[in-house]
Amino acid sequence: MSAVPLTAAAGSFEISPWSQHHLARVEQALSQWVGVDAPAGLGDAMRYAVLDGGKRLRPLLVLAAYEAVCSGAPGEAAPAVGAAMGDAALRAAMDDAALRAACAVELIHAYSLVHDDMPCMDNDILRRGKPTVHVRFGEAQALLAGDALQAFAFELLTPDATLIPAATQAALCRLLARAAGSAGMAGGQAIDLASVGVALNEEQLRQMHRLKTGALLQGSVLMGAACGPAPAAARDALSDYGAAMGLAFQVVDDILDVVADSATLGKTAGKDAAADKPTYVSLLGLARAQAHAQELLGQAQSALARSGLADTRALAALAEMVVSRSH
Amino acid sequence: MSAVPLTAAAGSFEISPWSQHHLARVEQALSQWVGVDAPAGLGDAMRYAVLDGGKRLRPLLVLAAYEAVCSGAPGEAAPAVGAAMGDAALRAAMDDAALRAACAVELIHAYSLVHDDMPCMDNDILRRGKPTVHVRFGEAQALLAGDALQAFAFELLTPDATLIPAATQAALCRLLARAAGSAGMAGGQAIDLASVGVALNEEQLRQMHRLKTGALLQGSVLMGAACGPAPAAARDALSDYGAAMGLAFQVVDDILDVVADSATLGKTAGKDAAADKPTYVSLLGLARAQAHAQELLGQAQSALARSGLADTRALAALAEMVVSRSH
Repeated sequence: MSAVPLTAAAGSFEISPWSQHHLARVEQALSQWVGVDAPAGLGDAMRYAVLDGGKRLRPLLVLAAYEAVCSGAPGEAAPAVGAAMGDAALRAAMDDAALRAACAVELIHAYSLVHDDMPCMDNDILRRGKPTVHVRFGEAQALLAGDALQAFAFELLTPDATLIPAATQAALCRLLARAAGSAGMAGGQAIDLASVGVALNEEQLRQMHRLKTGALLQGSVLMGAACGPAPAAARDALSDYGAAMGLAFQVVDDILDVVADSATLGKTAGKDAAADKPTYVSLLGLARAQAHAQELLGQAQSALARSGLADTRALAALAEMVVSRSH
Repeated sequence: MSAVPLTAAAGSFEISPWSQHHLARVEQALSQWVGVDAPAGLGDAMRYAVLDGGKRLRPLLVLAAYEAVCSGAPGEAAPAVGAAMGDAALRAAMDDAALRAACAVELIHAYSLVHDDMPCMDNDILRRGKPTVHVRFGEAQALLAGDALQAFAFELLTPDATLIPAATQAALCRLLARAAGSAGMAGGQAIDLASVGVALNEEQLRQMHRLKTGALLQGSVLMGAACGPAPAAARDALSDYGAAMGLAFQVVDDILDVVADSATLGKTAGKDAAADKPTYVSLLGLARAQAHAQELLGQAQSALARSGLADTRALAALAEMVVSRSH
């Protein structure tokens, strides 16, 4: 086995064509699947909430983690999913599982934005540069569309006739439900709700973001890993990567809320400060928040280095993208 | 095999002790599981929405269907789940799966009520004789609690360390996601939303209710059946039972909305008529709606008779209860 992980020699890897290739797959799948069997008004609202927008970071994390676990250990033949079980059809099924998982995490993310934007929550009228779902379709339809998107995420993970092993389907549902629920994203939003105007310390702020944003980002990495053959140690390292990258994402979000304008963000800038919400910037100041983001990027990179996986270049590039993004 | 299904000779079966036994199991499980790992405010709202209230019809349908498929064919030894696979521990795991499925369908039902009661939907302040969740905890918390309850339903179906076969877990998630989503409950609510003040014919009204209420009731039956050994013909018959019973439930709901008072219902009576919503009573008149409920009960009973299952008495009694209920 090589002692030098490929992540350290990522010069030959270009994230942009990699992203474009997978984004096209994700967009096509979402467009093919979302809202098509829903009654007209509901289907329109579901598709509006999901299609033609968003960075698709979570789907890309799923697909990058899947590729990483499929690459095996450095210097060894990759334990190709299908080949290991002597079945090309199974490999195709696992590719399908990863694509479904990629879409499912995006559906959960999209539903959370729809509900989060509603008047009783953040009351936001602009999202990804467009009117929010409740502004466009009314509050009742927005509520239902969010609910239906969450259910559809689990529907996507459990197709009717499929070669995706039942164990993979169950594992994906397990990971997604935990990432989305009261000990994950929804729990983090509840803490967020309760923390307006409250002085949180750094540990409390970190715990809120671990749940609110981190759980689904980390869950995306774990779901990708669950679609391929990964030793427990590799999964643990990817989990650490997901945790560090997830927190970095939120620190950068807080920074952008202060330094960027609404046009660049595609959503209302400065709203956290306006709402008197605790942020990394309000807690640490801008310079220390920026340093903290770099530190978390370093943690994500070392987790990849110790994963024992041959090719984690896409995951490394996504973490860098998360920290250097401008919107 | 006996030509006379036991459902026709149900004299020795008492639904009341059967219900009480299983209700106690469901209440205990819900109380043990719901909201315990949620941040305080969210956990309180989740538990308030679920505990100490409701007829628990859906959980009882799950457990009755599970018992029915475990009873096997009349005159033959029952294909006890565990015994068939030579494993008492597996039988215990399947019992656990059925209890989890029973709780999961109730969580979906409970979340739909929380969201349905919100100001942007039905704007109802009374539910099961208590203030609705948004009245008690605020709209934002109600929205989040509903979202978290839906995620938790899927979490319950996919426990971490379990002997429940992955195929059962995946099947339960599949059935629940479809029953809850845009081609099920959420889709029915969207049609309902779009139908206020609109003249629906009986077929359109039926389609709305098939999705809005019927899908989850039928899904409950199918999920119970999925936890045990059932030939395809038995599952098809139980599916027909679920469809007829689900529609009967809604017809009776429409009747009660007209003939009962709010105190008996535990919710606001007459609200469908007040909201100018189409109902079976507004469409057929009271007498024909009552006759239709009896006709659907007959369809549910004949489906049970042709299921080929030895003991469908609890399912038969639940269908009768649905039609004869006063609230």
